[in-house]
Amino acid sequence: MKCRKCGSAAVINLRQHRLSLCKEHFNDWFIQHCASTIKKFDMIKPGDRILVAVSGGKDSLGLWDVLLKLGYKADGLIINLGIDAGSEYSARSLEITCKFCGENGQNLHVLDIQKEYGGSVSHFFTRAHPDDQKPCSTCGLVKRHELNRVAKDNGYTTLATGHNLDDEAAVLFSNSLSWNTSQLLRQDPVMEEYGQFVRRIKPLVQFYERETTAYAILNGIEYIEEECPFSTGSKTNYHKTILNKMENEQPGLKYQFYRSFIEKKKTGLLKISENRPYEEHYCQICGQPTSSEGKCAFCRMLEGMDQAVSR
Amino acid sequence: MKCRKCGSAAVINLRQHRLSLCKEHFNDWFIQHCASTIKKFDMIKPGDRILVAVSGGKDSLGLWDVLLKLGYKADGLIINLGIDAGSEYSARSLEITCKFCGENGQNLHVLDIQKEYGGSVSHFFTRAHPDDQKPCSTCGLVKRHELNRVAKDNGYTTLATGHNLDDEAAVLFSNSLSWNTSQLLRQDPVMEEYGQFVRRIKPLVQFYERETTAYAILNGIEYIEEECPFSTGSKTNYHKTILNKMENEQPGLKYQFYRSFIEKKKTGLLKISENRPYEEHYCQICGQPTSSEGKCAFCRMLEGMDQAVSR
Repeated sequence: MKCRKCGSAAVINLRQHRLSLCKEHFNDWFIQHCASTIKKFDMIKPGDRILVAVSGGKDSLGLWDVLLKLGYKADGLIINLGIDAGSEYSARSLEITCKFCGENGQNLHVLDIQKEYGGSVSHFFTRAHPDDQKPCSTCGLVKRHELNRVAKDNGYTTLATGHNLDDEAAVLFSNSLSWNTSQLLRQDPVMEEYGQFVRRIKPLVQFYERETTAYAILNGIEYIEEECPFSTGSKTNYHKTILNKMENEQPGLKYQFYRSFIEKKKTGLLKISENRPYEEHYCQICGQPTSSEGKCAFCRMLEGMDQAVSR
Repeated sequence: MKCRKCGSAAVINLRQHRLSLCKEHFNDWFIQHCASTIKKFDMIKPGDRILVAVSGGKDSLGLWDVLLKLGYKADGLIINLGIDAGSEYSARSLEITCKFCGENGQNLHVLDIQKEYGGSVSHFFTRAHPDDQKPCSTCGLVKRHELNRVAKDNGYTTLATGHNLDDEAAVLFSNSLSWNTSQLLRQDPVMEEYGQFVRRIKPLVQFYERETTAYAILNGIEYIEEECPFSTGSKTNYHKTILNKMENEQPGLKYQFYRSFIEKKKTGLLKISENRPYEEHYCQICGQPTSSEGKCAFCRMLEGMDQAVSR
């Protein structure tokens, strides 16, 4: 297998693009493909202040690395969720991220949920749902709330996340199987600033997971290899397996599936609306945006905790 | 496993409805569920003349049987496509259909493609695509053209086909994976009369294949068990396998997938349009509707044959 650009030994074959590349030309391709994704979807505007949500994984650290190489100023934010389940997952995520940050001389915001709110995600969750096993919904709620809060509080205009094509295709697959129009409506490489929500962008959305993995490895980016211990057996992982099976039979399927959905929405051939349009209210406690009057789901969760403790 | 209605031994467990039934109550359920599908989607109107497209399979013969039991007058049409591939598939389909017809004292139109046009589907196809293996696209073209022509020529208002939920879910799955908006737009239990196209209805669209199979078996309907020899390895069969795998993990998934798509379209939460809206023209040769000026695809195919023969 030879590099299409220079004829030297290739390190990767991008089946969906019918393109084999050596390390150097893969890196060039990866960085340029990320730049063209940012341009195509108008992700970053002049004067934007970018905050990258990092987890210590290959995607978020790779994204941060590429943004810096493309000349963007971008700070990082890691949330220490306090997930361990015997694996010290959160502690290790933090350690690896700090190392990347130190080596690259970048600013990192560290938010420790335990210190900030007196309990970890696992702790919040176990209190509220003692019979359930997986805190994924609580974790999602905490991350959504806190990423936006920290970005707003620190004057960032744009929150960049490392979601790759495999992530987005699996979510799209799930939402199509149930025709969840509210979720389908919101699935996009860019969610524009809306009310009190900062703009969210996903610059890796056109990369397969094997490509983001290759980028991290070939560039010596140390990352946490283990998945979150709660992700085993999740619906998203199940849908990724199904899509991978189909991708094997038909290379490029995931790419086509996601890309053509986004294009059909953009051209208006697919118009999606939701049952009850989103109405923005502000939480009485934290002042963050919420879809219902009164308190937001995050503050209701904390309040539930207090009540549980005082009983 | 006991029948939920009468407590006697059940013959089938409808997992997605959490309903076990004996033979008698399954038959009642099947017929009533078909009646309510017809009513829900307003499939049959007073004064309609119904033509059932039959193939000799469990679905089309089962559909014809149920329509007669529901008191509708419905004639049949079978197209002898001349498919054998060593299995005499078409000949056997015709034989079984004629037997059903005789036993039930019904009218059957038999259209023999070989006699009508001087060549079978396999023959047409092999001439036009000598290197390809599967005549499925040619077969689809011939069936679409001829079913409508025969219905129109004989004054039928409504063409009923035996597509079941597994068929429709697999097609929907395929069209969602590619976001083919033209096909998604047209996928519906009812395609209303449009220009020179008669109304098309699919009264079995809410039944799983195992239910239509059970209905045929429990009612002693003899049917051709083998699939069309060209269906092996088809895209539709591949997608059926994937959906079956997911259905096993999550009973009712196919039903929800199809039903919620139809409902979201109906309520307008999902609005689909196509790139180039359909414009009806009429074929210079056969007078049937076609999307482009000049000759329709069917007549162009026959013409290609003539040229091939005269070369």
